[in-house]
Amino acid sequence: MANLLLDRLLGTDDPGRHFTAAAQLAAMLRVEAALARAEAAAGVIPATAVPAIETACHGELYSQDALALAAVPAGNLAIPLVRALTAAVKRRDAAAAGWVHWGATSQDILDTGLVLQLKGWLGDLETELAGLAKALALQARRGRDQAMVGRTWLVQALPVTFGLKAAGWLDAVGRARDRLGELKPRLLALQFGGAAGTLASLGDKGPAVAAALARDLDLALPDLPWHAARDRLAELGCWLGLLLGTLAKLARDLALMGQTEVGEALEGAEPGRGGSSTMPHKRNPVRAAAILGAATRAPGLVATLLTAMSAEQERGLGGWQAEWATLPELCRLSEGALRQARLLVEGLELHPERMAANLALTQGLILAEAVTLALGRSLGRLEAHHLVEAASKRALAADRPLAEALAADPQVAALLPPAEIQRLLTPDNYLGAAGAFVDRALAAHEQRER
Amino acid sequence: MANLLLDRLLGTDDPGRHFTAAAQLAAMLRVEAALARAEAAAGVIPATAVPAIETACHGELYSQDALALAAVPAGNLAIPLVRALTAAVKRRDAAAAGWVHWGATSQDILDTGLVLQLKGWLGDLETELAGLAKALALQARRGRDQAMVGRTWLVQALPVTFGLKAAGWLDAVGRARDRLGELKPRLLALQFGGAAGTLASLGDKGPAVAAALARDLDLALPDLPWHAARDRLAELGCWLGLLLGTLAKLARDLALMGQTEVGEALEGAEPGRGGSSTMPHKRNPVRAAAILGAATRAPGLVATLLTAMSAEQERGLGGWQAEWATLPELCRLSEGALRQARLLVEGLELHPERMAANLALTQGLILAEAVTLALGRSLGRLEAHHLVEAASKRALAADRPLAEALAADPQVAALLPPAEIQRLLTPDNYLGAAGAFVDRALAAHEQRER
Amino acid sequence: MANLLLDRLLGTDDPGRHFTAAAQLAAMLRVEAALARAEAAAGVIPATAVPAIETACHGELYSQDALALAAVPAGNLAIPLVRALTAAVKRRDAAAAGWVHWGATSQDILDTGLVLQLKGWLGDLETELAGLAKALALQARRGRDQAMVGRTWLVQALPVTFGLKAAGWLDAVGRARDRLGELKPRLLALQFGGAAGTLASLGDKGPAVAAALARDLDLALPDLPWHAARDRLAELGCWLGLLLGTLAKLARDLALMGQTEVGEALEGAEPGRGGSSTMPHKRNPVRAAAILGAATRAPGLVATLLTAMSAEQERGLGGWQAEWATLPELCRLSEGALRQARLLVEGLELHPERMAANLALTQGLILAEAVTLALGRSLGRLEAHHLVEAASKRALAADRPLAEALAADPQVAALLPPAEIQRLLTPDNYLGAAGAFVDRALAAHEQRER
Amino acid sequence: MANLLLDRLLGTDDPGRHFTAAAQLAAMLRVEAALARAEAAAGVIPATAVPAIETACHGELYSQDALALAAVPAGNLAIPLVRALTAAVKRRDAAAAGWVHWGATSQDILDTGLVLQLKGWLGDLETELAGLAKALALQARRGRDQAMVGRTWLVQALPVTFGLKAAGWLDAVGRARDRLGELKPRLLALQFGGAAGTLASLGDKGPAVAAALARDLDLALPDLPWHAARDRLAELGCWLGLLLGTLAKLARDLALMGQTEVGEALEGAEPGRGGSSTMPHKRNPVRAAAILGAATRAPGLVATLLTAMSAEQERGLGGWQAEWATLPELCRLSEGALRQARLLVEGLELHPERMAANLALTQGLILAEAVTLALGRSLGRLEAHHLVEAASKRALAADRPLAEALAADPQVAALLPPAEIQRLLTPDNYLGAAGAFVDRALAAHEQRER
Repeated sequence: MANLLLDRLLGTDDPGRHFTAAAQLAAMLRVEAALARAEAAAGVIPATAVPAIETACHGELYSQDALALAAVPAGNLAIPLVRALTAAVKRRDAAAAGWVHWGATSQDILDTGLVLQLKGWLGDLETELAGLAKALALQARRGRDQAMVGRTWLVQALPVTFGLKAAGWLDAVGRARDRLGELKPRLLALQFGGAAGTLASLGDKGPAVAAALARDLDLALPDLPWHAARDRLAELGCWLGLLLGTLAKLARDLALMGQTEVGEALEGAEPGRGGSSTMPHKRNPVRAAAILGAATRAPGLVATLLTAMSAEQERGLGGWQAEWATLPELCRLSEGALRQARLLVEGLELHPERMAANLALTQGLILAEAVTLALGRSLGRLEAHHLVEAASKRALAADRPLAEALAADPQVAALLPPAEIQRLLTPDNYLGAAGAFVDRALAAHEQRER
Repeated sequence: MANLLLDRLLGTDDPGRHFTAAAQLAAMLRVEAALARAEAAAGVIPATAVPAIETACHGELYSQDALALAAVPAGNLAIPLVRALTAAVKRRDAAAAGWVHWGATSQDILDTGLVLQLKGWLGDLETELAGLAKALALQARRGRDQAMVGRTWLVQALPVTFGLKAAGWLDAVGRARDRLGELKPRLLALQFGGAAGTLASLGDKGPAVAAALARDLDLALPDLPWHAARDRLAELGCWLGLLLGTLAKLARDLALMGQTEVGEALEGAEPGRGGSSTMPHKRNPVRAAAILGAATRAPGLVATLLTAMSAEQERGLGGWQAEWATLPELCRLSEGALRQARLLVEGLELHPERMAANLALTQGLILAEAVTLALGRSLGRLEAHHLVEAASKRALAADRPLAEALAADPQVAALLPPAEIQRLLTPDNYLGAAGAFVDRALAAHEQRER
Repeated sequence: MANLLLDRLLGTDDPGRHFTAAAQLAAMLRVEAALARAEAAAGVIPATAVPAIETACHGELYSQDALALAAVPAGNLAIPLVRALTAAVKRRDAAAAGWVHWGATSQDILDTGLVLQLKGWLGDLETELAGLAKALALQARRGRDQAMVGRTWLVQALPVTFGLKAAGWLDAVGRARDRLGELKPRLLALQFGGAAGTLASLGDKGPAVAAALARDLDLALPDLPWHAARDRLAELGCWLGLLLGTLAKLARDLALMGQTEVGEALEGAEPGRGGSSTMPHKRNPVRAAAILGAATRAPGLVATLLTAMSAEQERGLGGWQAEWATLPELCRLSEGALRQARLLVEGLELHPERMAANLALTQGLILAEAVTLALGRSLGRLEAHHLVEAASKRALAADRPLAEALAADPQVAALLPPAEIQRLLTPDNYLGAAGAFVDRALAAHEQRER
Repeated sequence: MANLLLDRLLGTDDPGRHFTAAAQLAAMLRVEAALARAEAAAGVIPATAVPAIETACHGELYSQDALALAAVPAGNLAIPLVRALTAAVKRRDAAAAGWVHWGATSQDILDTGLVLQLKGWLGDLETELAGLAKALALQARRGRDQAMVGRTWLVQALPVTFGLKAAGWLDAVGRARDRLGELKPRLLALQFGGAAGTLASLGDKGPAVAAALARDLDLALPDLPWHAARDRLAELGCWLGLLLGTLAKLARDLALMGQTEVGEALEGAEPGRGGSSTMPHKRNPVRAAAILGAATRAPGLVATLLTAMSAEQERGLGGWQAEWATLPELCRLSEGALRQARLLVEGLELHPERMAANLALTQGLILAEAVTLALGRSLGRLEAHHLVEAASKRALAADRPLAEALAADPQVAALLPPAEIQRLLTPDNYLGAAGAFVDRALAAHEQRER
């Protein structure tokens, strides 16, 4: 239940539906049927063999348990599947049975089947990704001018805006979408090379069959089989690792903003969500935790895919097997975390009053830089820095507003009248280019949507 | 099916039976029942409440699906389980229902439940580990004096014995067993602290209840709750990573020995095992691949557990969730790989004739060191090295035996008569302490078995 | 400077002094000298060769640059070192030069040299570890009864004590010390097997020489050479990963306590420490960041060591080389992080007034459980839970103290008089076994110190 | 020396020259000088301040040791550098000193400095990458029709060509180059946001200064500062991980081909390269080992960069620090491994006679598929498979050529005359589309070169 539970926490209502045993079986059989069609078209097998093969290429005809059991001594799932498929075809058309899986090898079916699964899954994922971008754009627009504390090293630094934070997340999600667009043509490619990558079993018809097969499955036709060059799949793993890193940043930021002592943003309240079994008042960042849980796991899974790349010769041992379980797991985790991130951003409960209160917490210290710069224009940066640092220390020691400490310093007072000090210490007056940055991020987002 | 398939390849007939949803549920309910008994014994809850609670603590009373679904908004599985358990008790004894899960928190049940699962699983694992050690000891004993090529950098170096190789694996497995004995008392410990680790909900009875609970569950009683100190679990993860590293070494060695060009050791033949769908003559190292597949995945999973250790305050977010899926996965992989390793070693098909042929492949070069040392006694190491290096090069260039090249060198001939050269170039005469090392490893093994 | 800088941030005044080029050279030469003595004692080489070899075994006689350069084509550092050493001996005693490095292989010198480096380094590390334990014990004792907020999911949960937090860290550090004691006998062992692990080059004197060499170097004598079984070193890596996980937990807790909005604990102030170039008032958790920086890197380094374990046959390619750079790096990071942790704990600036203020922040909600349990004794847990949950929601909605909301509920008022409600809502009255847990952790610490 | 040694093994003659302390200092100072120019152009600081600042922006004016030491309490290197730079400017022009580092924050200088270092380094790397591609294209062209054994699971499978292997490596290197082209615009971007990412310190001139600064440094201008969104750097890490995975595959393939028992490809011989200290005849795959050593380390380093992405708010603690040491290390390793790969491929010593001998090793079994397919045209695939499987077993058992066993089977003999059997069992006749695949890979390579 451990796994099942995590799936559920990730909110995948239909957890990993593209990566179930049934989905894998369906994808592999789709490759077998397309192979028969492509080979008939290329004149490699008789056209009369195709209908019986196509009819037998339906997953519900086969027992998943029996196949899995037979896969043990065989070493992979394709071997027993081809055997079962051949038997099923034979029951319909004995002659056709001889042409099943003609010239292909197990890995062709397993790899291309996986690519088909990934293609379907990426469709869903892109929808979620667009949904998250949309939700972030909305938050960036709404929060464009909402001042809040900016924090570095977890300590209050300077004012920022909530819109700028959201724009930063949006910007990174936009880059994730750009990268996905770039890698898809490499990833969604046929893998078909026969037992050692030469397609020797098809004589001189190999390239023609491969081209027809790629067309039939709507996949790119690679220059040569990639059975032993796993970078296309590992690249997807890296992309997912980067995506989860971006989502983790967003989730961590929001969880920190939701601390009881900070209280600036809470996950949307729903009955039964995030409660504690013993503390009735708690509202736990359940979605953020699910995202961070997935993101904590991703780097190790990506590392596994990278380690698995150094396949021995034409088919290694260990690496490919490690890939089987790792890539789908990473896909499921990413999809779930992405959905949680979308729901989290869509349902966010913001507390502008707490943002304001936190801005006021240091009694002006958070705006010391504004005063430093104003003084710096006359005194130079370092001199101004020392003056403001001294005033800050006095204010801290006396637990008094920085404005008072500054006004009490004759050197400061000579340059800045009280009203000017007050203006400088107002967060809304020290937001710099935050608004412009938000506008740019939104413009880039709209550009991507077009 | 990806995961299912890998499980099957790992030969776990009952894959991960200690880590199914049913097993998790049973373990959690076992904790709840023991808690009621412990609290009744300590006078915290009425003894009359215990029977109804115990009766309801059976997993088959609950729908796994419903619990998993309800765990989503709750954030963990214990919350809906306690709710369902309370309802079930209420149907039997309304008064008892009020005492269910008294003073505990979700994590107490989840953590201690996991420890109980691990305890049962470690029993099975130790049996497999003992089995592997036994099989290795047998191979070490049988192969004690079987000379074969030793290889460094994948290149022939000097003769070793197959027994020494097996003794090396056995020695490492022995250390794994020693380490497990050391970590078990830390790992198999109660985790019980209430909502924030103070057991405040039990007033002054916390320590007494904890002690009774640990006794009831036959777990060690820790000095304080470890809800936020995950090193006990991460230590198990590290141990599994080390174990899989040792198994991978063994599997890689044997797969390399099984290459067509080497042919010294093959995985035992079984009908349908390791065949290829297109190459009828192949015998693939299927068990080695399964072990290496598991071992390729382990380092990433261990890294995840280490990353997850830095839990925020009294319960973090992300780390604990990452642990849920990672540790059981690592346990399943290790158990499967261990079983495959045992079966591999037990069923090994050795080819001494190929070992001998490979020893002869370099026409004596592999024993150059023996000659170098013999000459070195008179000439010094470096001078001898240069002489033998030169003879080796001449032998290589002419594709002739080293013995000839050496005999043709007057400086060598002056020191070593032909018969002595021949003696020096006989592998069985240059095995050094291999036999003694095997004997020591076997003695240590027998010591451990006592 | 990147690396150098991180070293500095880790406060290693003499960064990684046990792992410099000079230290490595010295360790390797110490092995060569001891080898000569051991072989002379066993009658393998003439005793007259020893003095010249010993005299030449001093690192300052050799150019590190020249050795490193010559190591490139050779593939490791021992080959050029042996060559240089032989030349140096020859200049003193031509006969002795022939006996340098007699019967050993490069890896013997590199591995045993590394073990000697680790042995020296562990001495320093244990001192730091004891220092950290001592500092934590002091904090646990002082803070035994200092109530503060306990937080789960980053949200306020229940009161704990600062002493309990410190005791939790101490307890984990204690386990780290126990584990180190267990692994040291495995780690600090001679590695000596000759070119392929048989010591064939020593004829029948291999075991005797190995025993004498281990005695000379004060290392354990293993049952057989472990050149191709790297679990002893990987085990140290795992231990360091676990240690850094524990230190990261401590650092993260303290950094979170130091947030401007929380303010419960700050890193000790020092001139120039943790300031910002633009914000004069900031106090950054510089030590915590250094620890977390090291701990973020550790899991990947540990994973590398585990991956490197599957060495091919008698000496692999890639794995051993990866180990060279990884283990010393992990050692340096750990030592630095440990020192920073000790300094952080020793210099900690606690703010009990902020602890109290934060306990009061929820106006009693944080103690809702205490009321639930008090009511539960009469009403049952679930009923009480519902009552208190409702009162909590009313209090939250009205921004009023929970005490008021409770008093206003007739069902509650009937069971709990106002004074009792107040007593229940006082943090110091709801600390459960926190004090007892601290005492136990301190007792265990003192036990370890004995 | 551990690190130094690995550098040397990686053949980086000037190891990581873009990542030395001097290079980092120079890059940071280049940013400071450009900042002054950009701010003067935007009217933020007086133009008169620029010359003195520019003059002081030369690394040799500063003590690396002193800076590193001062970075300890400060928490990063920029703080003491700005202090030292200001002092140096002051000595020349007191007024100008006040404008040093105006409006910038430490991270702006550190991040943009790093981007400049990466830009220079990528130039070198692309040259190496092109060199490797060229060397691979040459090998693919030369080996286009050179038959050799294809191996799956480390066992002989079917004939392939050496050209096809080289084309497979070339194809993957080509994809690496494509990906680099895609990521560069994202990576080589200015990072400039001031203390919290708003550029508030520049009033309304922030965007103008940023644009001028990007132009001056010839970097892309991002939509908003990316100080807390580290995906641009982690993406480079992922790319390097993928590249090293591809290089490791190449190195592992060649090391396996160089085994004594296989002997198909050896690393080019050079005096002193790859020798053994005790075995004069050995030729070790030193370059392959260096590549595999680097590649074994990469996945852990990539995982670290991914973990480091979840920076807390506007600047996290731990993640950024982990990035400092990890990314340059990964860059150095990759550069070295790439150079080794190029040298390895350029200097490769091929042994076609061993390729032919290995093809003959199974006495025809390796071409069983060719016979199966020929028979399959008449008998159907499964029936043919069974016939050939039986003949293969008989041939194996009798240690006789497959041709004999086939000819002895009347069912086979009826369909295939002896000459046809012989033709089918000739490797050169069963290479399928290998040549066509090589041609395509070469065409794609030439396309990239244009």
